[in-house]
Amino acid sequence: MTANPRVTVWNEYQVEKQQPEVAKIYPDGIHYAIAQHLQSSGLTVKTATLDQPDHGLTDAILNQTDILIWWGHIAHDQVQDTIVDKVHQRVLSGMGLIVLHSGHFSKIFKRLMGTSCSLKWRNNGEKERLWVLDPSHPIAAGLDDSFELAAEEMYGEFFDIPNPDSLVFISWFEGGEVFRSGCCFHRGRGKVFYFRPGDEAYPTYYQPNVLRVITNSIYWASPLN
Amino acid sequence: MTANPRVTVWNEYQVEKQQPEVAKIYPDGIHYAIAQHLQSSGLTVKTATLDQPDHGLTDAILNQTDILIWWGHIAHDQVQDTIVDKVHQRVLSGMGLIVLHSGHFSKIFKRLMGTSCSLKWRNNGEKERLWVLDPSHPIAAGLDDSFELAAEEMYGEFFDIPNPDSLVFISWFEGGEVFRSGCCFHRGRGKVFYFRPGDEAYPTYYQPNVLRVITNSIYWASPLN
Amino acid sequence: MTANPRVTVWNEYQVEKQQPEVAKIYPDGIHYAIAQHLQSSGLTVKTATLDQPDHGLTDAILNQTDILIWWGHIAHDQVQDTIVDKVHQRVLSGMGLIVLHSGHFSKIFKRLMGTSCSLKWRNNGEKERLWVLDPSHPIAAGLDDSFELAAEEMYGEFFDIPNPDSLVFISWFEGGEVFRSGCCFHRGRGKVFYFRPGDEAYPTYYQPNVLRVITNSIYWASPLN
Amino acid sequence: MTANPRVTVWNEYQVEKQQPEVAKIYPDGIHYAIAQHLQSSGLTVKTATLDQPDHGLTDAILNQTDILIWWGHIAHDQVQDTIVDKVHQRVLSGMGLIVLHSGHFSKIFKRLMGTSCSLKWRNNGEKERLWVLDPSHPIAAGLDDSFELAAEEMYGEFFDIPNPDSLVFISWFEGGEVFRSGCCFHRGRGKVFYFRPGDEAYPTYYQPNVLRVITNSIYWASPLN
Repeated sequence: MTANPRVTVWNEYQVEKQQPEVAKIYPDGIHYAIAQHLQSSGLTVKTATLDQPDHGLTDAILNQTDILIWWGHIAHDQVQDTIVDKVHQRVLSGMGLIVLHSGHFSKIFKRLMGTSCSLKWRNNGEKERLWVLDPSHPIAAGLDDSFELAAEEMYGEFFDIPNPDSLVFISWFEGGEVFRSGCCFHRGRGKVFYFRPGDEAYPTYYQPNVLRVITNSIYWASPLN
Repeated sequence: MTANPRVTVWNEYQVEKQQPEVAKIYPDGIHYAIAQHLQSSGLTVKTATLDQPDHGLTDAILNQTDILIWWGHIAHDQVQDTIVDKVHQRVLSGMGLIVLHSGHFSKIFKRLMGTSCSLKWRNNGEKERLWVLDPSHPIAAGLDDSFELAAEEMYGEFFDIPNPDSLVFISWFEGGEVFRSGCCFHRGRGKVFYFRPGDEAYPTYYQPNVLRVITNSIYWASPLN
Repeated sequence: MTANPRVTVWNEYQVEKQQPEVAKIYPDGIHYAIAQHLQSSGLTVKTATLDQPDHGLTDAILNQTDILIWWGHIAHDQVQDTIVDKVHQRVLSGMGLIVLHSGHFSKIFKRLMGTSCSLKWRNNGEKERLWVLDPSHPIAAGLDDSFELAAEEMYGEFFDIPNPDSLVFISWFEGGEVFRSGCCFHRGRGKVFYFRPGDEAYPTYYQPNVLRVITNSIYWASPLN
Repeated sequence: MTANPRVTVWNEYQVEKQQPEVAKIYPDGIHYAIAQHLQSSGLTVKTATLDQPDHGLTDAILNQTDILIWWGHIAHDQVQDTIVDKVHQRVLSGMGLIVLHSGHFSKIFKRLMGTSCSLKWRNNGEKERLWVLDPSHPIAAGLDDSFELAAEEMYGEFFDIPNPDSLVFISWFEGGEVFRSGCCFHRGRGKVFYFRPGDEAYPTYYQPNVLRVITNSIYWASPLN
C-alpha cells in the first residue's frame, strides 16, 4: 500500500456552471469540494477538469497520480478516446480509480467493465440508506451497520456490471428499489471502486460518512509499489 | 444435471401443530404445501419431519435424495448431531440442499457456512420486494426484474454468512432494510441455495414466484450425474 | 436453460489454409471439426468464417444463435468493429459465448473483459494437465479429477482477465507454468466461457475430454428462455 | 487497518521435539522461527503451544491478539473444543487468522470452512513454484510473477474448501499437480488467509518470499478497529 497516495480529482465541471441551484451547493465545483476535504485530511491532491487541455490529464499528471477520482454526468461523450486509452492503461498498470455516481456511464468505466453499465433511476430527492454487506472490508472501516442520506437521486437494479470482486454496500431507497452502491473490482494491477452517491442536486459530498468512504477507498485502491 | 431429481422436503413441523393461525394457512404442514406443488409439476417428492425416527432422514432415504429442502424454526436444537453429520456428508458428496427462511439458524446451515448466520429481524407483516441481481442465473429464469410479497417477516443485513458464490436476489423491505435473499454456495461436490421468504404466518409458499424460484433452484442444485 | 440450443461455430479459418501441417490435422478447418462433433451429438450447428460477408455473422444468423463459439488467432484485427458491436450486444442480451484458446486476444473477448487479456506463452508441444477446481460445476460433469493433453502450446499466468465468476479448471504445464484454463463470466443476461486448449498445431479438438467440456459449456451458457 | 497488529504464533510443537531431523531445522520450534522473523521486522509477537495450559490461548492472550498464526500437523485432535470455540468467536469478531500448511486439517480451519478440507499429497521433496494470480492484491506486494521453493511436500487439487474470496497464489509441482496455495476468506468481521508452504522437513519458514507473504497477510488480515 502506498503510504501517502497522490490523488487527482477529475470532474467534467459542467452542471455547476450551468445550473445556479447546483452552483449554490458546489460554488467551485464538485471536484473542489472533494479535493478540499481530502487535502484537509492530509492527502496530496490535484484537480483536473474537462475543459483543460487534455482534460487536465496529461502524461505528466497521470504519471504522478496514484488514485484518480472520476465524476461526470452530461458530457461523457466529450472525453477524448485517446485520454480514455491512457487512463485505461494506467489503471491496468496499477493506478487506483474511484468512479462516483453518474460516472457509471463514463467511457472509462464502461471500458473497464465491458458491459452497458445501465441502471434504473428516478430523481425526486428520496431517502437512501446504505447498508454494509462486508464489515471486514477496509472500505467499511469506522462505519455503523448503515448510514442515511436524507435526499438523493435513486439508482436501481438491475445494474449491468460484472459481479464485483467485493460488494461493500447495498442501498435501500424509499421508493422501493435496491442498488449495489459500493463495488470493488480488480483489473490488471489496478483496483477500481464504484461508489453510488453524489447527484449534483444534493450536498452529498459534504456528508461525513460519504467522505469517509471515499477516503477509505483511496487507501484500499492505492498501488502496491 | 439430473434429469429427474428426487426431492425430499424436510420440515420440523412444530408451529403448524402448535399455532391455530398457522394451521389455517398450512393445515398439513409447510412441507406438505411445498411437496404438493412440486409433485404437481412432475417431480418425485418425499417428505420427512422432526418427530419421525431419525427425523425421517434414514440412510435409505438420504441415499435416494438428490435435493433436500429444509425448513425449521423453533426446534433447531432437537435435530440430532448424528443426522446433521450425515446430511453434511451427503451435501459434500453431491446432494443439493435448499435452506428456506428461518433455516438460516439450522445446525446444517451453520455447519456448512462456518459462521454465526445471525441477522436482523422484525415480524410485522411488511411488504418485501425481491430484486434480481443476476438475470443470467438459472434460478432467476422466468422472473421479471423484481417480484413482491405483500406481507412477510423482515430479515436485514448484516447477514453473517460467507460471501455467496452467486447472489441472485436482494430483498427490499418497507421498513428500511435490505437482505441477500437468494444465495448460492458450492460446497464439496454439492450445491447449496439459501432462499429467504417463508415465515409461517404468511401464505408465502403458495406464491407462484416463490414456487418458481424453489423449482428453479432444484434443477440448479441437482447432482451432476 | 434452452433445451436444444442452436450453436454457431465461428473460425477465422486462416492457418488451416496457409499451413499444410495444420491442414493435415483440420482439412476442413477447426470450425468444421468442432461442428461435426457437436452435430453428431444431436445439437443444431452452423458455422461461420472471417472471409464470408459480415464474417458470416449477419443479423439473421446472430438472431438464430443461442451459443457462439469463437476461434481466432492471426487475424483478430480483420474482424470489423460493427460486427464486434453486434456480438457484444447479443451477449449482453443473453447469447452464450465460448471463447477458445487464442481467442483470448479477439476483439470481442477483450471488449467483454475490459482488460488486456495478455498472458505468457511458449509453443513446443509440452504436456498439459487440466485439474478440476470445482467438481460441483456443470462444466466439469463426467470428468475425472484431471485430464491430460499429450502436447499443447503453453499459456501461463499472469493472465490479465477479471476474476472469473467460477474457475473450473487450472492447467499444469510440463515446463513449470500454471494457467486458469476454464473461466466462467456472467455479463449482462449472457454467460461467457473461456477454454484454453486448442492450438492449431495439435489435434486437440478431437480429444474426447476437450469435446465433453465444450459440450458441457454449451448447456451451461445457454440463454434462460 | 491496525497500524501495529499484535501477533500470536501458535504451534502444536510436536514434530520438532519428536524428530531429530526436524529439530535440526527448527531447534526451538516452527513458531519460534516465524516469531523471530516477525519480531525483527518490528511487529509485536507472542507464541503459544499445544502443551501450555489452554494451549497458551487464554482469554487474556486472545483478547490481546489481532492476528493468530496457526501451525499444526499430527495433534489436531488434541486441541480442545472449548478453545476452538473461543478462537472461532474471536475470528468472527474481527481477529485475523493465518493458517499454514497442514493446518488445513485443524479443527478451527475446518470449522470456518464448513467442508472436509481434504486434498492430495505426496512428500518427496519436489520443486514447488508459486504463481501470483492477482498482482493487485496486497498479499502479493513486492513479489515477482512467481517464486520457487526447491523442495517441499506436494499438496494437490481437488482441495475441498469453499471458493476463496480472493485467490492470490496457485502452486505448480514438479510431479504434475496444481494447488490453490494462497486463499483469502472473509468470515464475519474477520479475515482468514490460508498459505500452503511449510512442511516441517524443509527450511521453508526461512525463505524470504515465504516470510514476505506471511508479513503481507498479517497487514491484510488486521482488524479494522
